[in-house]
Amino acid sequence: MVERSALEHNLATMSESLPGARLRPHVKAHKCTALARRQAQNGHRGFTCATIREVEGLARAGLGDDLLLANEVLDARRLGSLDARVTVAVDSAETIDAAVRGGVREVLIDVNVGLPRCGCPPDEAGRLADAARARGLSVRGVMGYEGHAVLLEDAARRASETSRSMDLLRSAHADVGGEVVSAGGTGTYALNDVATEIQAGSYVLMDTAYGRLDLPFRAALSVLATVVSVSSGYVVADCGLKALGMDHGNPAIDGGEIWFCSDEHVTFSPLASLRPGDRVRVHPAHVDPTVAYHEHLHLVDGEAVVDAWPVDLRGW
Amino acid sequence: MVERSALEHNLATMSESLPGARLRPHVKAHKCTALARRQAQNGHRGFTCATIREVEGLARAGLGDDLLLANEVLDARRLGSLDARVTVAVDSAETIDAAVRGGVREVLIDVNVGLPRCGCPPDEAGRLADAARARGLSVRGVMGYEGHAVLLEDAARRASETSRSMDLLRSAHADVGGEVVSAGGTGTYALNDVATEIQAGSYVLMDTAYGRLDLPFRAALSVLATVVSVSSGYVVADCGLKALGMDHGNPAIDGGEIWFCSDEHVTFSPLASLRPGDRVRVHPAHVDPTVAYHEHLHLVDGEAVVDAWPVDLRGW
Repeated sequence: MVERSALEHNLATMSESLPGARLRPHVKAHKCTALARRQAQNGHRGFTCATIREVEGLARAGLGDDLLLANEVLDARRLGSLDARVTVAVDSAETIDAAVRGGVREVLIDVNVGLPRCGCPPDEAGRLADAARARGLSVRGVMGYEGHAVLLEDAARRASETSRSMDLLRSAHADVGGEVVSAGGTGTYALNDVATEIQAGSYVLMDTAYGRLDLPFRAALSVLATVVSVSSGYVVADCGLKALGMDHGNPAIDGGEIWFCSDEHVTFSPLASLRPGDRVRVHPAHVDPTVAYHEHLHLVDGEAVVDAWPVDLRGW
Repeated sequence: MVERSALEHNLATMSESLPGARLRPHVKAHKCTALARRQAQNGHRGFTCATIREVEGLARAGLGDDLLLANEVLDARRLGSLDARVTVAVDSAETIDAAVRGGVREVLIDVNVGLPRCGCPPDEAGRLADAARARGLSVRGVMGYEGHAVLLEDAARRASETSRSMDLLRSAHADVGGEVVSAGGTGTYALNDVATEIQAGSYVLMDTAYGRLDLPFRAALSVLATVVSVSSGYVVADCGLKALGMDHGNPAIDGGEIWFCSDEHVTFSPLASLRPGDRVRVHPAHVDPTVAYHEHLHLVDGEAVVDAWPVDLRGW
């Protein structure tokens, strides 16, 4: 379920802070073209994607003005054939070669700014940009995700880590050139003053991990579960490991203490008033892998379901 | 990917140990009617389900001889309308009432045998059975899942916990009557001599958690990932939190040490030979929530894909 008032608050708050192309919403957080369309209506016409399927889905939904696949791919053929502007991240000779062979025309040099994941060392970015241009690619600039900083609860440390990462990205950008410096996430969107565009995604739905930060966004997403058993002194509801991303730990239930989750259950501390058939809202710890389990986002206004949006960008 | 030789070994090994109706395979582990059909061909015509969708899917696939929803539901209407023999677990007046109102005719009394989840206290089972019969339901017997025992690595402790749980289930069965005593899982299938039928599911595909036990089943399931980056001294492949159940912890990669998973990546220790574009097999820690992320199980014979089975029992 997506609570409409919280969603609208989050959309408006972010658009005020980062209007238009200053925000390139990351669709991996919601995997939903209907929600992406709402972001586009708010002025954000470029999107960030994590998978080829996400790029394809947005292109087919008519949201292909400027799609960035902020990830490395070794087979880009499905991207090159799309009727959309597609830019892909590259960090190696192999990924440059894949872009060329796949018919992709524009790239960003992906720079490692501290998160142990993709991206070339900052001092190799210029050389890679030269190699990409030599293969006929247009290099729009750089990307460097400070993913190790976005969830730091200490705001000062989050700011200093972001600053250190962006110093690396700035130096790489000086070697690469181009208009785009793409970085940032929900935790750093207001701290990152180097990036020309912020790739935040979680802000629109939120989760309990981001909820611990000093952010102005509200928890919009929950999973509505039915209490199925209170027979042994605790409460069991029908929302488990196949409805929740679990890498950030257990979900939360207002007023309850979670004991553990099973495939289709969450067991939590006694809430004396609950009976089988009652409904509880389960708040996921991590929004992205939670949404990826579900077929629809149900837009709700309190108890009333006002719309059902297909989660149509799942898979790969 | 499902390695055919390992799958066939697992099917044959289990069917030899628990022939025919002694095994009621739990489909929650694979959510795939094509694989359920293979289990039925091996003589196991009754199935265990965790969700209404699983029951519906098996019924529509012509596998509805004897379907047990081993879970409590508060709205059973979709079950009562199926062209299949459907039995549902009940552990309260409310779930009995839901079965009656939904048009379900047969139930098992679900007994709590130590796992803090569903099931009535053992000494209330007889009273619940009376209540169900008074409402016109046929009570086929009892169910009691020793889920707290199935993953214990110490085999002696696993056996003693199972024995203690089954003592409780036996006493409840004495009060309830009926032919069925349904219990057990992949970790206890060979230890549980009280249950008339064993609800094992994971045995057919396996995962690294069950792989640590003294079981004769082979790891059949893996996720095939492509290396996308080696640019910074470690290896990154494109299999992450949306392709893996993470509640049992990180997956495994042969010869590699996992650092962490992100939404679409796994970062692991350097394997000097790996280059972007190379493939690695990622072995999930927990099979059930892993399969629930995927659209197909690809049956493979080494490198060759010999079939693609839809994971058609996902959702609720």
